[in-house]
Amino acid sequence: MRLGCFAIDGEARLGLALGEGWVVDAAAAQRRLSEAGLVADGPLTGGDVRAVIEDWDGPAGEALRALHQALETTGDTDWLAPGAGVVFAIEEVEMLPPLGTPRKNVLCLGKNYADHAREMKSERPEYPVVFSKASSSLTGHGSGILRHRGVTDQLDYEGELAVVVGRRARGVSRKEAMDYIFGYTLINDVTARDWQRRHLQWHLGKSFDTFCPMGPFVVPKEDAPPIQEMVLETRVNGELRQRGRLTDLIFDIPTILEVISAGITLEPGDVIATGTPAGVGMGFQPPRFLDVGDRIEISVNGIGTLRNWVIEG
Amino acid sequence: MRLGCFAIDGEARLGLALGEGWVVDAAAAQRRLSEAGLVADGPLTGGDVRAVIEDWDGPAGEALRALHQALETTGDTDWLAPGAGVVFAIEEVEMLPPLGTPRKNVLCLGKNYADHAREMKSERPEYPVVFSKASSSLTGHGSGILRHRGVTDQLDYEGELAVVVGRRARGVSRKEAMDYIFGYTLINDVTARDWQRRHLQWHLGKSFDTFCPMGPFVVPKEDAPPIQEMVLETRVNGELRQRGRLTDLIFDIPTILEVISAGITLEPGDVIATGTPAGVGMGFQPPRFLDVGDRIEISVNGIGTLRNWVIEG
Repeated sequence: MRLGCFAIDGEARLGLALGEGWVVDAAAAQRRLSEAGLVADGPLTGGDVRAVIEDWDGPAGEALRALHQALETTGDTDWLAPGAGVVFAIEEVEMLPPLGTPRKNVLCLGKNYADHAREMKSERPEYPVVFSKASSSLTGHGSGILRHRGVTDQLDYEGELAVVVGRRARGVSRKEAMDYIFGYTLINDVTARDWQRRHLQWHLGKSFDTFCPMGPFVVPKEDAPPIQEMVLETRVNGELRQRGRLTDLIFDIPTILEVISAGITLEPGDVIATGTPAGVGMGFQPPRFLDVGDRIEISVNGIGTLRNWVIEG
Repeated sequence: MRLGCFAIDGEARLGLALGEGWVVDAAAAQRRLSEAGLVADGPLTGGDVRAVIEDWDGPAGEALRALHQALETTGDTDWLAPGAGVVFAIEEVEMLPPLGTPRKNVLCLGKNYADHAREMKSERPEYPVVFSKASSSLTGHGSGILRHRGVTDQLDYEGELAVVVGRRARGVSRKEAMDYIFGYTLINDVTARDWQRRHLQWHLGKSFDTFCPMGPFVVPKEDAPPIQEMVLETRVNGELRQRGRLTDLIFDIPTILEVISAGITLEPGDVIATGTPAGVGMGFQPPRFLDVGDRIEISVNGIGTLRNWVIEG
């Protein structure tokens, strides 16, 4: 199952990915399937995945799992055809950040791959380096990343796997940490390098509007490949720039959860990006920053591909 | 006018400060005054000040201003007596963070008073240093700051004046910046110094649960003294530890707004804490960190006093 959020005529809808390139309007599909007596007419929650996660063990989660199973076994039917108002091409709708506006800013790990720390001329960190990206910087798959011309001259990308918190967590140990993870998504930790450097703390240079593309979908951990098999790749205009195994994280996901939750209560729908491997624009000699028209694609096998373009503005 | 938010039996209510030490339940007062024909029965918005700010120029703001004026001119009446369900002693109710959960984390300036930068053995910053405190760290006036024993050994305070954003702002100039400010409140930028130092980026050490006491009230700028006259003071167990004039900020409020809004859209109800003057616990030789039972009071003339205690946990 892959869960997302998209808008048609400005109205947010909960979506389920269907094959490659399609998204099902969950509420519309449920109506059709319940008319046919195949699922109950259930309490699907509103337009974002955070609401689903909060009720994952309750009626909404149950309804969604039943819906997903029914869709898997439904053969060709008229209403599953494009144009019938249930299934849409991902590239033709507005994909939204899947989790809506999380309760807190997106948490991010810095310098969490040794090769990236080296290319940034940094030491390998002794403790996890954690910063946040403002919630107002979130944007969806397929949307434009603003060039912020006149504000930054050093627009850069960072492809990252992010974990999505499933349950309230405070003081969890490494050992139990994975129980608190709902699943995975992708983010592009877009960065204005000049601002990141000048302002010492990274928050500003990481938080400009549109600097946090997220999605396209959230994949529950049961439906994701094991971390040991995940490979992250970032392409700019088709050229492979970053490639990292998730096993190369300096601080692995359980450690990240243990450290953050030691003092901070994590809430369902909170997002923690796990860091970026070598190959960012800043790491080249001379640096290769982004400009209008550039296409950035971030992929992890089994999680999806997050694609965005740099646009004027 | 001073606007706040408090809870009785777990239910959040919008409040207006009355004299020193009292808070009026705005909806209850409006009912009484409209029964007497003194104000219209108007659309007071829900339980937090952010909703009021969003509708400040609309019906909710209008109703609140009318209510405030009517209360100013109402003489002694039975229903304004304590115990009648309209007026409450601040120390007897649960004061909440006035702005509810802001859309983004609380923004904070670091090293924005020269004397504090010196005591932290830092350079005077060339550019504003901006970080965020997780929304989940917010707590209200009178509440406990958790000691986080076993997690940090260096619990410290930082008294700060915070500005509250009144209107969506992106790319505002210094000159027009004050038009986007709704008013002021106080925060205690509680910090685990060991975490702040070890993790390089300050986000974690600034974001533990209860590390962002805010309030007690938000004061609209029209009702606040001019910045030139504001003096910030922090007392620990009654002892004066910090004293700074708001004119001593390295980066003044218009500059802060210009710099942050260059890339980030500020939204109504967003909070920006302006930094702390010298006198934090870390600045003493030997350092004077907080422990269970310590009382911290942060005051700015005309804005109020934010009081919290360190509690076990």
